[in-house]
Amino acid sequence: MEGQRTLFLGTFVHCQNLDSLEYFHDTGVFVDEKGTIVAVKQRCNLTIAVETVMPELDSHIHASQYPNAGIFGKTTLLDWLNKYTFPLEASLADTDKAKKVYTRCIERTLSHGTTTAAYYATISVPSTNLLADLCLSFGQRAFIGRVCMDTDLQPDFYRDSSAESALADTKATIAHIASIDPTHSLICPIITPRFAPSCSSPLMHSLGALQKETNLPIQTHISENKNENELVKKLFPDAASYTDVYDSHGLLCPKTILAHAVHITEEEAALIKKRQAKISHCPASNSAITSGTAKVRWMLEKGLDVGLGTDMSGGYSASILEAARQALLVSRHVAMGGDDKAKLSIEEVLYLATRGGAKVVGLEDKIGGFEVGKEWDAQLIALGSVDNESKGDKGLVDIFGWESWEEKIAKWVFNGDDRTTSAVWVKGRLVVHERQ
Amino acid sequence: MEGQRTLFLGTFVHCQNLDSLEYFHDTGVFVDEKGTIVAVKQRCNLTIAVETVMPELDSHIHASQYPNAGIFGKTTLLDWLNKYTFPLEASLADTDKAKKVYTRCIERTLSHGTTTAAYYATISVPSTNLLADLCLSFGQRAFIGRVCMDTDLQPDFYRDSSAESALADTKATIAHIASIDPTHSLICPIITPRFAPSCSSPLMHSLGALQKETNLPIQTHISENKNENELVKKLFPDAASYTDVYDSHGLLCPKTILAHAVHITEEEAALIKKRQAKISHCPASNSAITSGTAKVRWMLEKGLDVGLGTDMSGGYSASILEAARQALLVSRHVAMGGDDKAKLSIEEVLYLATRGGAKVVGLEDKIGGFEVGKEWDAQLIALGSVDNESKGDKGLVDIFGWESWEEKIAKWVFNGDDRTTSAVWVKGRLVVHERQ
Repeated sequence: MEGQRTLFLGTFVHCQNLDSLEYFHDTGVFVDEKGTIVAVKQRCNLTIAVETVMPELDSHIHASQYPNAGIFGKTTLLDWLNKYTFPLEASLADTDKAKKVYTRCIERTLSHGTTTAAYYATISVPSTNLLADLCLSFGQRAFIGRVCMDTDLQPDFYRDSSAESALADTKATIAHIASIDPTHSLICPIITPRFAPSCSSPLMHSLGALQKETNLPIQTHISENKNENELVKKLFPDAASYTDVYDSHGLLCPKTILAHAVHITEEEAALIKKRQAKISHCPASNSAITSGTAKVRWMLEKGLDVGLGTDMSGGYSASILEAARQALLVSRHVAMGGDDKAKLSIEEVLYLATRGGAKVVGLEDKIGGFEVGKEWDAQLIALGSVDNESKGDKGLVDIFGWESWEEKIAKWVFNGDDRTTSAVWVKGRLVVHERQ
Repeated sequence: MEGQRTLFLGTFVHCQNLDSLEYFHDTGVFVDEKGTIVAVKQRCNLTIAVETVMPELDSHIHASQYPNAGIFGKTTLLDWLNKYTFPLEASLADTDKAKKVYTRCIERTLSHGTTTAAYYATISVPSTNLLADLCLSFGQRAFIGRVCMDTDLQPDFYRDSSAESALADTKATIAHIASIDPTHSLICPIITPRFAPSCSSPLMHSLGALQKETNLPIQTHISENKNENELVKKLFPDAASYTDVYDSHGLLCPKTILAHAVHITEEEAALIKKRQAKISHCPASNSAITSGTAKVRWMLEKGLDVGLGTDMSGGYSASILEAARQALLVSRHVAMGGDDKAKLSIEEVLYLATRGGAKVVGLEDKIGGFEVGKEWDAQLIALGSVDNESKGDKGLVDIFGWESWEEKIAKWVFNGDDRTTSAVWVKGRLVVHERQ
């Protein structure tokens, strides 16, 4: 595909804005050899009919936890970390094991249509660097976070020995990525203090300073769980709020991705808005480990930028489409509390999974929709027809033939899986090949 | 397979009781020519290794709504009925269309491991009878309900013209099933007043009398949605409660399956317990159409019998495994309200999907586990190994090799789909063939 222009013909669907989808029927999209969309021409006379949907972005996922997807028992955040998560992450210091886990995680997320992922790896520099190498090799757009955590919340066998070594290790991964993708055309390092209880104040200050120095993005967790919030209050008694902990350490900026934000207050939302920090909503995780129900409508009305995250393996699935489903369902649980307008529509959860995610990771000018000048990140959706089962296993979405486009999209969102994502492109490169 | 004994070798998993699974490793299960388990022998020397899990039962599913799976917008129960459901159900008076819809529904539910389903069809006798024929032909164990609804809650184009005709049509389907499966060995009619607002008092009285006469099971809906409950209060001002409406019409008995029961009171739970009526919990539906969060732990502690239903298409999926997942997640939403013990475990949701469901449909002596004397209803689970991808698409469950049995089951529950269900038997007959 490289070295030549490519013409894609068919129906293209992307989010026009938060609450509406835009359908380009009988359309041709021209992509140049660099993977950039150079023309979108409607009313083409087509010989090939395909359905292509915008890229999906996972703005919060722990690649290192992939083997635990579905394993969480009755735990909540703090015991979940100790029981399931730290032992697995620590074991990925073994790069052979890390290679197996990361390879499978990338293959799976790509097969689900995740063209871009904001990854947490582990504290191990070699295995974090390996994740960067693998993403580049597979062609997945990725933010790679070497996890920083130097407090005794973490067990002896899995923590940074000092704030200094955590900073040095973070810089080592930044240097490695600069060596494999100097312009960060596909792979970008991301500064990753795990979350406030994991990090000493000196560590957070040094990472905040590093952000100012490098202008790299930051990712962390915030206000996921009530016990966590109590712990933060105890650990940082002088902070005005959990959000203020990050702010006072220079970690709250327009390039900061805050995962969860389930229990943030009005004041915290206002501070996040003021700093233009971003939110990654992780509904599957929030339900599975009983964290709570994030008020997405409330966030959107405050003008916060919100994207979706699987938070695998707090979330049980590596599929961002499953995260979109769960965002819709969780919004109904918020609505059950009395606020009927809290309900998110199919269009809105797809927005969160596409353009919303692009804003959250700071790539809204590059990806998220089919406009001239954007890069060609896309997934081809093939829905099964009840009348024609000859072309292999197209998954669980049964199209009877009388459905409207809106209904087809709804059926895809709720019953689609990796089988309906029959091809995926990132930056013009075909990274998931169409099945037979 | 018929006319000879069959020996199944491998690991067998079923629910021992509500909160624990029982694993039979290195075991042989002998099934006779009638599909009955005649011996279970442990510590066999195996040459074939398989993993076989108990049958799953869907105790509440609308076969006629299959094409709408995933289409529900922002509706709640009463507008959902009018906007999506009645028009589709009415259109299935066309038996060609019904054949297409029911065939696909049965193929899909079987592929998900649903060995037994309690189906709602429509008011059309010919198409309801067709559903019975198709279930018998495919070999799915099924309860077939010709839906009764004679009030003006329903539109002119889709309702019973009178209580008398509704009763006569119900008897017509009962007679048809008697002609195709006289002993109800696989297919059983079920008396189906849609729900109280759909049925006149004379209709409900006549269906109650029919139950006494025939001893057939009954299925209906109860207390799914708060607006529905208000409507029932208005329609039946003299009734002590929604449950009392059914009780006072002779419709509350040990053979009654009540779907939902989201908002029932202490008094209603006590009356249901007294009558030994059963509950079908439908968590995917309850979240999707914003009905509420059913308190399953509370029901179980009162000694109520609870099974799982997909309630497709109020529920968006025909998969009973998805219903089990959602039961676990919804129980966590109940727990977020403050009752931590509301959380259901993997073992408990599997119990609801197997033995619980068997009790709800009155088949606990025949199916639900691997005991001598029970019939051979089972699904073969094939989980994909990361190390060995050669044997076709085994779905999304990636087994790395270090997982315990409990972890494998958890991974299957949360990421399994029709691909992991590689074979299904009902009453000894292989109804889903192993994929290559």
